[in-house]
Amino acid sequence: MSKQAIGVVGLAVMGRNLALNIESRGHAVSVFNRSREKTDELIAEFPDRKLVPAYTLEEFVASLEKPRRILLMVKAGEATDATIASLKPLLDQGDILIDGGNTHFTDTIRRNQELAKAGLHFIGTGVSGGEEGALKGPSIMPGGQRDAYDLVAPILTEIAAKAPDGEPCVAYMGPDGAGHYVKMVHNGIEYGDMQLIAESYAVLKQVAGLTNKELGDVYTEWNSGELDSYLIEITSKIFGKKDDETGNDLVDVILDRAAQKGTGKWTSQNALDLGVPLPLITESVFARVLSSLKTQRVAASKVLSGPAAKPLAGDRAAFIEAVRRALYLSKVISYAQGFAQLRAASDEYKWDLQYGTIAKIFRAGCIIRARFLQKITDAYAHDPQLANLLLDPYFRDVAANYQAALRDVVTAAIAAGVPVPAFSSAVAYFDGYRSERLPANLVQAQRDFFGAHTFERTDKPGSFHAEWA
Amino acid sequence: MSKQAIGVVGLAVMGRNLALNIESRGHAVSVFNRSREKTDELIAEFPDRKLVPAYTLEEFVASLEKPRRILLMVKAGEATDATIASLKPLLDQGDILIDGGNTHFTDTIRRNQELAKAGLHFIGTGVSGGEEGALKGPSIMPGGQRDAYDLVAPILTEIAAKAPDGEPCVAYMGPDGAGHYVKMVHNGIEYGDMQLIAESYAVLKQVAGLTNKELGDVYTEWNSGELDSYLIEITSKIFGKKDDETGNDLVDVILDRAAQKGTGKWTSQNALDLGVPLPLITESVFARVLSSLKTQRVAASKVLSGPAAKPLAGDRAAFIEAVRRALYLSKVISYAQGFAQLRAASDEYKWDLQYGTIAKIFRAGCIIRARFLQKITDAYAHDPQLANLLLDPYFRDVAANYQAALRDVVTAAIAAGVPVPAFSSAVAYFDGYRSERLPANLVQAQRDFFGAHTFERTDKPGSFHAEWA
Repeated sequence: MSKQAIGVVGLAVMGRNLALNIESRGHAVSVFNRSREKTDELIAEFPDRKLVPAYTLEEFVASLEKPRRILLMVKAGEATDATIASLKPLLDQGDILIDGGNTHFTDTIRRNQELAKAGLHFIGTGVSGGEEGALKGPSIMPGGQRDAYDLVAPILTEIAAKAPDGEPCVAYMGPDGAGHYVKMVHNGIEYGDMQLIAESYAVLKQVAGLTNKELGDVYTEWNSGELDSYLIEITSKIFGKKDDETGNDLVDVILDRAAQKGTGKWTSQNALDLGVPLPLITESVFARVLSSLKTQRVAASKVLSGPAAKPLAGDRAAFIEAVRRALYLSKVISYAQGFAQLRAASDEYKWDLQYGTIAKIFRAGCIIRARFLQKITDAYAHDPQLANLLLDPYFRDVAANYQAALRDVVTAAIAAGVPVPAFSSAVAYFDGYRSERLPANLVQAQRDFFGAHTFERTDKPGSFHAEWA
Repeated sequence: MSKQAIGVVGLAVMGRNLALNIESRGHAVSVFNRSREKTDELIAEFPDRKLVPAYTLEEFVASLEKPRRILLMVKAGEATDATIASLKPLLDQGDILIDGGNTHFTDTIRRNQELAKAGLHFIGTGVSGGEEGALKGPSIMPGGQRDAYDLVAPILTEIAAKAPDGEPCVAYMGPDGAGHYVKMVHNGIEYGDMQLIAESYAVLKQVAGLTNKELGDVYTEWNSGELDSYLIEITSKIFGKKDDETGNDLVDVILDRAAQKGTGKWTSQNALDLGVPLPLITESVFARVLSSLKTQRVAASKVLSGPAAKPLAGDRAAFIEAVRRALYLSKVISYAQGFAQLRAASDEYKWDLQYGTIAKIFRAGCIIRARFLQKITDAYAHDPQLANLLLDPYFRDVAANYQAALRDVVTAAIAAGVPVPAFSSAVAYFDGYRSERLPANLVQAQRDFFGAHTFERTDKPGSFHAEWA
């Protein structure tokens, strides 16, 4: 009986689509699910594909070539631990488990270390692109033992999305939790991108009075330039979609309460742990949370007044272009923060992350795919030690040329009472980062005053305390 | 041999000052420190005080009346666990351990539950006011078993700070981790207050050109009005302090790199876990982090240009008043966020927190003591179920009257390139909270488009999915 080169455990939508993707590249795939119904459904739906069902883990493990390659697509958390515990006694030294779930990177570090003691390899990999990406080509961010990665790289490379230049969107990220970490930051960046687009929508609609039709046209046009990206593309389409039931524009029928699944939150919490400023993504996470307080907001809207509505001062086309520039520069600032966090994490967890490669594998398959990612790859190719993307000549010039527009848009929004937490935060970070001197000297003086926490001096090293009282 | 009503373990500065405070109210106090030197030093320094040294934990425990009251003032974390483990076999049912360290509330919940199994009481208490507060009267925030609290309440009440109306700044916060939680949020609020004052300083100095002498005068004047508070008071004094070495104003000699000890970070991380918007305090934590990147900022200041400096447009006195209003309203917004977090935590952890009482015990002893806290107490007295402080009539009116000033100050700062992350975040939160409709409908449309995450509708309940492509 022939054995398969790879097997998939967990046949919910992501697992089954990855199995079908692998099979479509010419590999027979062993498949297993805890409840046999899902396995039978998959086989029944695709009777002609080389999917080899197993109904016990023993049978599944026995069906695989050695070293075994097992892709786990189970629910992140306890289910992953339980599956690993069941598989472990059935495996041999050198076998490779690949966790493709949305796992917190600290869990991946722990599992990698525990399994290594038993001679087993453990790869934690980010998989981005949703259901469709899983089926046709996701962006893949694997981390773990390098030699284990090399043994699964051929298959991952085949199933990965291909960038416009044909390069596969997969690369070795680094040891243990590096892959899941990069995926976490990817998701945080996605939160920032979506909030920034939402703010551009609010400003265009509420300050400049654009209709949905006009909004659709604006985003369509923006998608042909610097902002060219999947999220701008789908935004342009959203404004053209009608509600089947009412015939109204669907975007207006959708409740303004955004949900979240937690990976944006993880990114912010980790930034706080690392001591890396990540205000824009964090404001984006809080913006979703605030949106969810719909009942309170409706009540507050009747109690708390804002500025009186005024018609847009100045030229409408010029304002739309200012919003485009504000959006692009804010996006640059958000990625500058996210990539600075990757850098801090690489130092902290000793991963040797390759920032240019990371931007490269984001170019297709994943939600944040965008033309501008090439600029990030270029920046790190030019200077692999770049402390912050804003210091790269291309991004420096974007900042120089677009900051006036960003300031104008934030000012217009504030005057109109339109909340722009992420745009505002972008300005504040930019001005803070380029400040040779911040008012933190006063904070240090206060801390020394009330708590004798000491301060540093500008003129010599050391810690000092003053008798303030 | 007579026994003492209370003992203190850990004689670093906070422990020894609390022991001296308790003794000064007429109680003999047993004292123990892991290394005997600190104990001997304390006794030698205060030979006439009723401090009873013990050199073993056995001796210490034997010296206490039953039920024993033991105040632990050891380093938060492993040292606390180790001390508890050493004490536990020596204690009897009904004895009370009181942890006065800066402990994460989840550790307090765990310890409270573990010790309860052995019939021991565990109180986790926030103690705010630094060294001097510990000695003369801190603000005290105890949580744990109510009946255990009642047995230590007389002593805590004696040693606590007294508010202007004579009320002691101590009250039962709630079960298990409630006390340490309230202290954590207190510290987060402190981060926000300090950052807001720092931003007012930056704007007054960089936009309006105030000298240190003028700044000292402005904060002195502000301290006689709505902003009357300990932090404004010490700020006014900081600007008058000369450096002994150079003769320059000390504030200018202090390096603009602010440190932190982590409790602000905890507050933000927990807000993210609870799903409560806490952007202002979080921006304040990130502002400290950004200030610490001094080397990068100096380098960036040479690469990234900002707006050209312009003289202040308009009347200087009017601008100073606008900054005062911006500061006060931003402070109100920060407390609205912090108290909303307390409310969410009270629900999540089942603590039944009393928000008005919490504001009351902040009125003296602690770093954030301020006249305006009475307004918070009044607001919850008027409506104990108040969802957000901004909905209270007094704070609603502050928002109505001062929002124009806040918008103007943020606009002026942005035009001048002066970073005001907390002021900006205050505006964004205010405008977001009072928005009946936010652009989160677009975010939900995007999530449904790329991930089939579904959306809610404005016209009927349920989850819906559209065929977007």
